[in-house]
Amino acid sequence: MKQSLGARTLLYTHPVVVIGTYDRDGRPNAMTAAWAGICCSSPPCVAVSLQRPRHTYRNIVETQAFTVNIPSEKYVREADFLGMVSGKDTDKFAAAGLTPVKSAEVNAPCVDEFPVVLDCRLFQSFELGLHTQFVGEILDVRVEESVLGPDGMPEMGRIRPFIYDSARQEYHAIGRLIGKAFSAGKELKG
Amino acid sequence: MKQSLGARTLLYTHPVVVIGTYDRDGRPNAMTAAWAGICCSSPPCVAVSLQRPRHTYRNIVETQAFTVNIPSEKYVREADFLGMVSGKDTDKFAAAGLTPVKSAEVNAPCVDEFPVVLDCRLFQSFELGLHTQFVGEILDVRVEESVLGPDGMPEMGRIRPFIYDSARQEYHAIGRLIGKAFSAGKELKG
Repeated sequence: MKQSLGARTLLYTHPVVVIGTYDRDGRPNAMTAAWAGICCSSPPCVAVSLQRPRHTYRNIVETQAFTVNIPSEKYVREADFLGMVSGKDTDKFAAAGLTPVKSAEVNAPCVDEFPVVLDCRLFQSFELGLHTQFVGEILDVRVEESVLGPDGMPEMGRIRPFIYDSARQEYHAIGRLIGKAFSAGKELKG
Repeated sequence: MKQSLGARTLLYTHPVVVIGTYDRDGRPNAMTAAWAGICCSSPPCVAVSLQRPRHTYRNIVETQAFTVNIPSEKYVREADFLGMVSGKDTDKFAAAGLTPVKSAEVNAPCVDEFPVVLDCRLFQSFELGLHTQFVGEILDVRVEESVLGPDGMPEMGRIRPFIYDSARQEYHAIGRLIGKAFSAGKELKG
């Protein structure tokens, strides 16, 4: 029996990503977001939703660029911090002890310590209501060599990303492998 | 040192959701998707990206409604299956042994066996390229009573959702709690 919890923004699961931007004077900023996801294969695009008052909002509008950085578990404190304070008042990179490095592809900084970064140019933006959705075209994905497997592709167990539980405001690690996609369901094809 | 993997749709992590729809004749369909996420708080909205040839695409356009269902780990086979075959040819609910139940709020079926469902009416849609993004206004979130904690809110350890690793086409369980949001980063506020 299902119980109604009303109209709310609950989903399992939310990713935890950190959006890297420059302001008009070239000052780097980083903001944690959970409302993000891939949204198109061609062109390859990722969407991030932001409220207008956010410093990152203005930076994206002004620079037309951003990075999407994936923090590892060991940076859960830093990622949480980057979602708690505004870059209007604080040099968040410095306060978190993180290093901004300009992307070669776009006018936006990545977080050097994080293992995965998507370099994005602003492709489209949509006013949905209280949030605006910024759709970035992914120009490159860059990954730390230390998280690549023998086949040259990243390994979940080395990246160690984490997810956000919005119902309880908690972060969880990623657990064990439970199945291969396009394979686990084959026996049901009959 | 970061290594370039080129422009690709890599992100950590993708959710695994199942989109429930009816066709014009009221036949239920369910399709697994990983390119989905919350995108607005007011109105509360969730976005799902689909390619035009998908049966679910036409169903959403025709009914202006869909559900977003969260499968538990124990349904990984069923969820994988629902992403492998088309509802054009197959009664996917029947083939997977799952039960469609009409939502009270919208003209779309939920998957009765899955613990969480978001009832959505089509709010907006955006042509991005090869994919169209459907933005649904969440009219209700319904949750199995068995996954609610003593406080009436769902518990991650009872829902047991899972995530998709697109780099390796694998599903992973959710792991241990690693931090409280808006708390873990407080010590960096100085």
